[in-house]
Amino acid sequence: MVKTSVDMFEEKLISRDQALLRIDPELLEQLLHPSLDPANTVAPIATGLPASPGAAAGKCVFDADLAEKLGNAGEKIILVREETRPEDIHGFFAAEGILTSRGGKTSHAAVVARGMGKPCVAGAEGIVVDVHLRLAHVGDAVLREGDVITLDGATGMVYPGAIPTIKAHFPEELKTLLGWADEIADLKVMANADTPDAARVAREYGAMGIGLCRTERMFNASDRLPIVIDMILADTEEERQLALDRLLPIQRSDFVDLFSVMSPDPVTVRLLDPPMHEFLPTEQQLLEQIETLRLYRNVVRGRQTALSSFDLPTELPKPFDDLSEEHVNEALLKKERMLKKVRELQEVNPMLGHRGVRLGIAYPEIYAMQIRAILEATVECANQGISVTPEIMVPQVITSQELAKVKVTVDELTEKLEKDFGKKLKFKFGTMIETVRACTRASQLAANVEFFSFGTNDLTQAVFSFSREDAENKFLPMYNETGILQDNPFEVLDVYGVGQLIEMAVERGRATRKDLKIGICGEQGGHPESIRFCHRVGLSYVSCSGPRVPIARLAAANAKLLEA
Amino acid sequence: MVKTSVDMFEEKLISRDQALLRIDPELLEQLLHPSLDPANTVAPIATGLPASPGAAAGKCVFDADLAEKLGNAGEKIILVREETRPEDIHGFFAAEGILTSRGGKTSHAAVVARGMGKPCVAGAEGIVVDVHLRLAHVGDAVLREGDVITLDGATGMVYPGAIPTIKAHFPEELKTLLGWADEIADLKVMANADTPDAARVAREYGAMGIGLCRTERMFNASDRLPIVIDMILADTEEERQLALDRLLPIQRSDFVDLFSVMSPDPVTVRLLDPPMHEFLPTEQQLLEQIETLRLYRNVVRGRQTALSSFDLPTELPKPFDDLSEEHVNEALLKKERMLKKVRELQEVNPMLGHRGVRLGIAYPEIYAMQIRAILEATVECANQGISVTPEIMVPQVITSQELAKVKVTVDELTEKLEKDFGKKLKFKFGTMIETVRACTRASQLAANVEFFSFGTNDLTQAVFSFSREDAENKFLPMYNETGILQDNPFEVLDVYGVGQLIEMAVERGRATRKDLKIGICGEQGGHPESIRFCHRVGLSYVSCSGPRVPIARLAAANAKLLEA
Repeated sequence: MVKTSVDMFEEKLISRDQALLRIDPELLEQLLHPSLDPANTVAPIATGLPASPGAAAGKCVFDADLAEKLGNAGEKIILVREETRPEDIHGFFAAEGILTSRGGKTSHAAVVARGMGKPCVAGAEGIVVDVHLRLAHVGDAVLREGDVITLDGATGMVYPGAIPTIKAHFPEELKTLLGWADEIADLKVMANADTPDAARVAREYGAMGIGLCRTERMFNASDRLPIVIDMILADTEEERQLALDRLLPIQRSDFVDLFSVMSPDPVTVRLLDPPMHEFLPTEQQLLEQIETLRLYRNVVRGRQTALSSFDLPTELPKPFDDLSEEHVNEALLKKERMLKKVRELQEVNPMLGHRGVRLGIAYPEIYAMQIRAILEATVECANQGISVTPEIMVPQVITSQELAKVKVTVDELTEKLEKDFGKKLKFKFGTMIETVRACTRASQLAANVEFFSFGTNDLTQAVFSFSREDAENKFLPMYNETGILQDNPFEVLDVYGVGQLIEMAVERGRATRKDLKIGICGEQGGHPESIRFCHRVGLSYVSCSGPRVPIARLAAANAKLLEA
Repeated sequence: MVKTSVDMFEEKLISRDQALLRIDPELLEQLLHPSLDPANTVAPIATGLPASPGAAAGKCVFDADLAEKLGNAGEKIILVREETRPEDIHGFFAAEGILTSRGGKTSHAAVVARGMGKPCVAGAEGIVVDVHLRLAHVGDAVLREGDVITLDGATGMVYPGAIPTIKAHFPEELKTLLGWADEIADLKVMANADTPDAARVAREYGAMGIGLCRTERMFNASDRLPIVIDMILADTEEERQLALDRLLPIQRSDFVDLFSVMSPDPVTVRLLDPPMHEFLPTEQQLLEQIETLRLYRNVVRGRQTALSSFDLPTELPKPFDDLSEEHVNEALLKKERMLKKVRELQEVNPMLGHRGVRLGIAYPEIYAMQIRAILEATVECANQGISVTPEIMVPQVITSQELAKVKVTVDELTEKLEKDFGKKLKFKFGTMIETVRACTRASQLAANVEFFSFGTNDLTQAVFSFSREDAENKFLPMYNETGILQDNPFEVLDVYGVGQLIEMAVERGRATRKDLKIGICGEQGGHPESIRFCHRVGLSYVSCSGPRVPIARLAAANAKLLEA
């Protein structure tokens, strides 16, 4: 279809516009991910939610550490977990695909996999993972670590063995077509990307910048997480500052890389958003780890025979045989501090809890470190002759007073750096619009910022009073089946609720600041129907996961072509 | 002040209006609750949140069962818990006041205590309650069951021993003054009340009806909860219907009582709202109960000496000495089913989860039972010559399709009952407006209903993306101290965010249905500043907890007097 459209244009049978309009943007999805061979006749062993498209086969592995080890050794693996957490991130990098038995389309596994363009089947409830025995029960069958399975992220099916897949391809004709689309569209298409690798992928898909870089993803790499945990466990501001001082050069160098890859296009960096407990293990995990450590202390004391290495806490220095009781006690003490902190940080509704700018106000030194890293990276790039356009973005804002407080830090650091640097720093300061109150207060917020970015995942949750994870697991399917809701509002922007608040915010924001740059960085930003809405209400850009960028580019052009 | 105002009017020194305007409505609070003797010099032993006003002294009791037993025996007791849950409700009835070590001003303890007009200190974090040892640690001191303490719900202070309190009084002059207020005000003042007792109290305070009856509160009494749990544990619709058939006559008789007390004024009954897991013990509690039962089985088998009676699960038939192993096994089986259900119902953000009308759509037979109970009670009252005005209210609505589904049930049952009864049934059908989407869709919703009632607690949570419990415990105090927010939006209605959505909904709702009755039943409904707002935007009524009704009556009159 893509090919014939471009051919027909070249033969002057149709116009460029007609060539573009012939293609349904959603159909590009098939071209951009590997898919299961349609000739397959093997029956699935389990079904979950189609959480990230694509198909992949590999050996089951039940923890991220082993996944990383085998992946680095060149094995194709599928990470199989009950649910994933930020500390599993190295397992994602190593895996071909991700399978979880709990969580919805917004679960950690689903969102991270989509961002990386890897297939994911989430919430496959028939699968019971037993990490300790290194196996998973699937109905009556048993899946052992090392058994090969195939995931189809487009349907949510899980197959035994390696089913042949058809490779994705990005033909020349598609590049031509999308080049035309970019010329026509009013909306720019940016990508959500958190690492230089993801940014490079986004570039290949034609992203015109990064609309959302989630800095917390940078905190999760295995060399950083221990520092982040030290920061969280800190009892005093001084202790916290020590940990932040260690994070600063790491974040700065991340930003230098990211800005360089995207140069000269904008990179929008969101300051820390998730609640702190997301960086810590769960209470249950900690209780188990403490129990294991206590047992292991008996081994070290010679009272008991050694445990299997799978049960050993990863924090203990290796090799295990050299461990002294002191090592174990130290690890125990740390775990107990973590447990205390986890209980302290516990929240009834974490989605509506101590997160976003609320964290930045409570711990200004965290935001200060991040802002400094962004600005210093800007200087460093400039010194290397790399032209960059960073944007600093504040999450979860409800009132302009919050922005004013963060802006004081930005202004102070800018002044200091510009003095040393001898030149003006070029960057933008902006805010997420993801609470309902931010929409009603948009004219006040616009006085403090140069751009808005709608976080439509959170905004949808707030407008519907639906927790996405709970809704998709419990009642949203029923609402769709009985016709109460036509679509999943987390996939297709809800024009009558969320859309009205977006229109309100656009109108009020631009009334204060006519040239306000306004975009959307929620997941709906990659969906053609939602893109048509974004075009209609006059947004400046949409931002979506890298692999959806081509779909968004075509949809943005079609929205423009269809408006007449 | 109240007395001199009325005197001055009678001496013709001031007008009625001037007499009313001389009194700050908030000052009435002092008159309406007992307060601590200002001469007290005893130092507090702990401090929590002032969660429900008033002062009370009594013996500490650490569980609701014992509280009920001692309370019924005429002892003055204070219920002391880590946090309270619906199944503690009988302990509230028996207690003079409630003290918890966890939870905010919207915690179960706080809301229930306020509704009952009993003092409550919530989230007194220095107190560590040990139910098993029957004591509480307060810093270095120990509070044993039976020790006398005094709570001051106005300040959040907890004192050792019995501190003298000054009784509340409702002087004749105040009644006169409030009578004038009622004549002047446009806004009617209703009460939130869930039981005939609470309704009687509300009547004494001058409530003009019940604006919010939370039916789930009726489910929590100790004779009903086991039936509700059977309903939740039901695996089939038939099993669930069996439990509902047992609940129907109980709910019907509740409504007959409630309607009779308030006759002929309206009683607005909200259909089931909270997520089902709120009726079950927590996972942790169940794990402990199962452990206790297993140990107890050993006692029954004669393998172990008897446990203290305090540790015995309340579900076992008494006296314990007659128990057979079979009894224990049966109880165990039930607990294990409950544990399975609790895990199944677990939610990440219960505030945004499977609750309200989402439950009514998933389990239509539950709403059908409640609607039938309301309508049959209406018939029964009519047959007794009691004039009643029931109103059926649907919670958590986001779209008119939900209302349409519930209305089908209402219409079917009405038709059937009217046929038997031979007369038209007089009642209203309406919806809570407590999601943001309900505000944007108000013109569509109004087509299906005769009244709106703003649930401003939930609406505030949605507009701010604040979970009240988490916010008040974690960051709201900081936001107030640093001036980011002037008020606690859960106490004083946020005019710039929540208020704008209310205005939108009022305008859109009345555009569809000019005579739409519109009220507010969130906690802000009892606060003078919020009442001024409600008057200004043209609401028909406010509804607040019984003890705040006099304050609201005066505030409603003052709002009218000040509008010129």
